Amino acid sequence: MKIYRANLIDTPTKDAFRVLYHGYIVVEDTGVIYGTYATLPEELQGFAVEDLGDKMMIPAFCDMHVHAPQYRNMGLALDLELLPWLNTYTFPEESKYKDLQYAERMYRRFVHELWMQGTMHSVVFSTIHYPATHLLADLFIESGMSSMVGQTGMDRNCPQTLSNTTDELVEGIRNLDAYLKEQCPDGRVRTIVTPRFVPTCSDEMMSGLGQIAQELNLSVQSHLSENRNEIAWVKDLAPQAKHYGDAYNRYGLFGQQPTLMAHCVHTDGEELEMIKKNGVVIVHCPMSNMNLGSGMAPIRRFLNEGIHVALGTDVSGGHNMSMLRAIQYAIQVSKFHYGMSGGKTSFLSQSEAFYMATTAGGQFFGKVGCFDKGNSFDALVIDDNYLNYDNYTLEQRLERYFYLGDDRDIKRRFCNGKELCEPAF
Amino acid sequence: MKIYRANLIDTPTKDAFRVLYHGYIVVEDTGVIYGTYATLPEELQGFAVEDLGDKMMIPAFCDMHVHAPQYRNMGLALDLELLPWLNTYTFPEESKYKDLQYAERMYRRFVHELWMQGTMHSVVFSTIHYPATHLLADLFIESGMSSMVGQTGMDRNCPQTLSNTTDELVEGIRNLDAYLKEQCPDGRVRTIVTPRFVPTCSDEMMSGLGQIAQELNLSVQSHLSENRNEIAWVKDLAPQAKHYGDAYNRYGLFGQQPTLMAHCVHTDGEELEMIKKNGVVIVHCPMSNMNLGSGMAPIRRFLNEGIHVALGTDVSGGHNMSMLRAIQYAIQVSKFHYGMSGGKTSFLSQSEAFYMATTAGGQFFGKVGCFDKGNSFDALVIDDNYLNYDNYTLEQRLERYFYLGDDRDIKRRFCNGKELCEPAF
Repeated sequence: MKIYRANLIDTPTKDAFRVLYHGYIVVEDTGVIYGTYATLPEELQGFAVEDLGDKMMIPAFCDMHVHAPQYRNMGLALDLELLPWLNTYTFPEESKYKDLQYAERMYRRFVHELWMQGTMHSVVFSTIHYPATHLLADLFIESGMSSMVGQTGMDRNCPQTLSNTTDELVEGIRNLDAYLKEQCPDGRVRTIVTPRFVPTCSDEMMSGLGQIAQELNLSVQSHLSENRNEIAWVKDLAPQAKHYGDAYNRYGLFGQQPTLMAHCVHTDGEELEMIKKNGVVIVHCPMSNMNLGSGMAPIRRFLNEGIHVALGTDVSGGHNMSMLRAIQYAIQVSKFHYGMSGGKTSFLSQSEAFYMATTAGGQFFGKVGCFDKGNSFDALVIDDNYLNYDNYTLEQRLERYFYLGDDRDIKRRFCNGKELCEPAF
Repeated sequence: MKIYRANLIDTPTKDAFRVLYHGYIVVEDTGVIYGTYATLPEELQGFAVEDLGDKMMIPAFCDMHVHAPQYRNMGLALDLELLPWLNTYTFPEESKYKDLQYAERMYRRFVHELWMQGTMHSVVFSTIHYPATHLLADLFIESGMSSMVGQTGMDRNCPQTLSNTTDELVEGIRNLDAYLKEQCPDGRVRTIVTPRFVPTCSDEMMSGLGQIAQELNLSVQSHLSENRNEIAWVKDLAPQAKHYGDAYNRYGLFGQQPTLMAHCVHTDGEELEMIKKNGVVIVHCPMSNMNLGSGMAPIRRFLNEGIHVALGTDVSGGHNMSMLRAIQYAIQVSKFHYGMSGGKTSFLSQSEAFYMATTAGGQFFGKVGCFDKGNSFDALVIDDNYLNYDNYTLEQRLERYFYLGDDRDIKRRFCNGKELCEPAF
């Protein structure tokens, strides 16, 4: 049993922060949260308490959509729309991951950056290459962080150097799944079925991925309705599908297994209905949508319709791996919807955006994301002393940390109950 | 004479970066740039060269619109539109600056933050209070940085605690101008005529400010066409004016003296024509426009029409005093215009945004903003080593610094030829 005393802030629901000034959080030896308390109950009074002073403790971040092999291009090459951007900058970079030495050099930096930014849970696209994907999974195991790592499926409309076959890919998924189930029986690092997106995946590949997802009971991730030219292209490529989402649904890749769909900037009508009906989780990537000129996903509307929305950085479409920045941009982008609606919608609140970055993402992993009893203890200790020079409330301190803080302020990181030290890179 | 060797990057025009790998910049003892060179000419070969290795040297930033007395609220209270935001959060905070001790505590932090962010030139709103405004000017003198400091005019539609009379204000401007001309004969710190905006300034005040600006040959700053409700209100308040801009123009506050107008989010038609004709400088504040849901200024259009556009953080409507963030948001916001135009406009380029943050702002101060011969030497030394782990070009390094860098990377700061040390706070 470990007991920490700190200013505890989390979002069990999206509607408000739960705040405990100088509260106690009690963690069992298994890494599970035993409880949070304003004053320690009698049965716990014999245990040592580690007092973190006036620091804040918040749930660790969950980045639900990020491309590990685009790390080298982070903060670069943001002058094109999605499709030319992929062909000009992204596919050439991802092709380099055939070289395992290059992959190791970059993936070590990528994993280090997740640690640095306090992102203890991530859902990651790798490349088509099995050895590099396996290596990335190993680096996650070594780091102590939790991740779902997806070998990416691509077999059409892409360079020859970045194309795999359905058989190779299904074999890769099977091997990685078996390996990870053995190495991480607790599921801390898992694989996830990852068709890149409809334009680069033939019917045969989609069919093979739908089958293996069901057979091995794996989650699924992909991209949906990000860009208008992409959507028009999908209409040509999959004329039998009722809409872009249906092109996944026909192959069991749209909520039949737990499913993440990134972007949904232009999702509407029947596609939105299918997302709702099938329980697909939308991953909002506001930084990327801005940088690639994709548009602005109508998150307030999705939330009003009861759709489950989590948050992603989408590096390197997104320019920064900090989930603080994803929170900030999610709120800011919601204000354009407000403006365009003539003030009829409402902004996203701080608590809604934080919920998306922690609790909503965490639920995809299991009992993760807030400080509820029984949840995994995943937490960051934040020292905002340099920002806290006046009579700010805890909610205000947190808000300032969202807008002004960065990795410097994260003093300690816990994942699944263990404190994680800095990974080598 | 001082000679530095570094990777020199600046923007004498907005269309492209001027890049000198391991070039030389020569600074006269007066603080003026003698020249930049790929190899040192013979006449300079006797002088010592300070080699800055692989670091980048760029012009220091110019923040052309920032509210010093809103510093305490930076990164806070961004859940309302402009007018209720002013009444709920901003006016109560600014009222505190009657207390000179409070003012000193906060203004020292504000000046320190400018230094920290590498903003060597700034154009600043203070409050209505003369003693606090005088103090702020003194802190700028002490710091070595350059600034235009404006005591703010307000005499209607504002709390009694935040209202001054025309006579008081004109006397304040006269006193501060005389004081600064004596203290800073080189004009490093100056005052600027600062009607807050039409809603809070009576005709009498506008008239008095127009006269004193002309009499003392002072520059002018204010706000223009930021928010739709504000614009409608100005229409009611100044029915005789042809448009919002004309409500300044009628009093000689719209380009008759060098003039900065912040925002211009909804500027169009005759107002835009008057800006062009009168040579008014638009200060684009993309962070603030996003945070307060004001809309998106059509900067590409302004540039196409040959209008002079500089950049501001507009703290605390803007959430961050880093001009890196202003650059980044300027580019990102331009992509929404791109999206809304169906791809018919073009994004702002990196060099255009950097030009706005350095050269375009600098011109308002005189020979400031790029490394041209004869300009004031205002520069930052940037160590981006931790970002530069692959074969990036200098332009790519700069782009990554825009998107991923922060104050940590600024190793040295020069203003008017002098290296500035960290101000106490």
